[in-house]
Amino acid sequence: MKQFLVLTLFPEMIMETLSHSILGRAQKEGFISIEAINIRDFSNNKHLQVDDYPYGGGAGMVMQPQPIYDAYQSISKAGQTRVLYMTPQGRPFTQRMAEELAKEESLIFLCGHYEGVDERVIEEIVTDEISLGDFVLTGGELAAITMIDAISRLMPGVLGKEASFEDESFSQGLLEYPQYTRPPVFMEKEVPQVLLSGHHGNVEKWRREQALLRTAAKRPDLLKAAELSQEDIKILKKNGIEL
Amino acid sequence: MKQFLVLTLFPEMIMETLSHSILGRAQKEGFISIEAINIRDFSNNKHLQVDDYPYGGGAGMVMQPQPIYDAYQSISKAGQTRVLYMTPQGRPFTQRMAEELAKEESLIFLCGHYEGVDERVIEEIVTDEISLGDFVLTGGELAAITMIDAISRLMPGVLGKEASFEDESFSQGLLEYPQYTRPPVFMEKEVPQVLLSGHHGNVEKWRREQALLRTAAKRPDLLKAAELSQEDIKILKKNGIEL
Repeated sequence: MKQFLVLTLFPEMIMETLSHSILGRAQKEGFISIEAINIRDFSNNKHLQVDDYPYGGGAGMVMQPQPIYDAYQSISKAGQTRVLYMTPQGRPFTQRMAEELAKEESLIFLCGHYEGVDERVIEEIVTDEISLGDFVLTGGELAAITMIDAISRLMPGVLGKEASFEDESFSQGLLEYPQYTRPPVFMEKEVPQVLLSGHHGNVEKWRREQALLRTAAKRPDLLKAAELSQEDIKILKKNGIEL
Repeated sequence: MKQFLVLTLFPEMIMETLSHSILGRAQKEGFISIEAINIRDFSNNKHLQVDDYPYGGGAGMVMQPQPIYDAYQSISKAGQTRVLYMTPQGRPFTQRMAEELAKEESLIFLCGHYEGVDERVIEEIVTDEISLGDFVLTGGELAAITMIDAISRLMPGVLGKEASFEDESFSQGLLEYPQYTRPPVFMEKEVPQVLLSGHHGNVEKWRREQALLRTAAKRPDLLKAAELSQEDIKILKKNGIEL
């Protein structure tokens, strides 16, 4: 079972958000475990303060190093487990990184808040600085939750037996083909005929072509990095796309 | 007041997650409003089914167009409001996009689940396909919540009077400088002397230099796009960094 440990000022937010849907079920069925550790419980200040003014001045408050360090030390696996700190400074989170992190037995997430976290505790405990993207959030909690979701769904059992990773986005470096389900006509739009044909080979060919053309149109950067067959290159050429 | 409307199969997940911390307070104080609309309430199937097998075969289920379309039509602002669909196919979400979306009076988010959403309803109602990043999630909910967080914190009042956007990551195209707070010595690590000096000019200079060097080390792509002064370029040169 994979264990996620989250150092946070908002443990209820972590636990409630991940109690729903697929990840809620995955916890109940014992495929993953998620534990939120409240940094505030490790304040040694009688007002349970965990932040203070930044040295050198400036707006906002900075999270103090001691409560974070003590919260981290309370984890039995401290020192043997990677500690991920979510920050715009980090390496961008990608599907490849999710696959790599899915191999770890346990992971510790440190969620910052306010204007940031004292640099010294980051130096002391953090092994990986990771960015969810080039945007700023009110705290690291949503970044941690999102990463836990992306990593968990790769764990055996979490998505159930029906799950297929083969056809999904990025699995072969391409975007996914369009999907259609009942009814056959919606708002006067028909499902593409080939999908109703029952001809498996033609369906596969059409889907591959759609995945290639979509990726070319929307994410040419992905297309350049994708593993393409001779057939793929022929399809692209036929549609006027040169690599 | 800014209005966020979320079309989802997991309305409690949306509302609970955003009830905490800064966004919880922002809702109570009336700076933003968040409403989750349950797509399942618009199923016209007696089993309240909202998904079905994909035409053409394949693993997983696809969300049907009708319940989504009817849920969308139930919104009084349907047709006048941008509809954002979270998908790896979309344009990458960035701070610039958050700033642009913060100008809209209301926004509708469509959260997909299972293997995807019938393409025809996307064509019919969606105005913007947006990707949180190059990774796959169990559903669009966490992407929508994360975007709502990034957009909301830019709204007047949400972060309170103390908030400063000037110094934060990306505000000038650079990563943020390191932050320090009490105590002055932690685990034998001292706060940089300049921050204790009380000399405002030197503090500003040090912080700018740190922001430049960090960005050069960790995100050279950002540095290339940043607006740099002659002084900035001199600092970089002094540290052996050529643009």
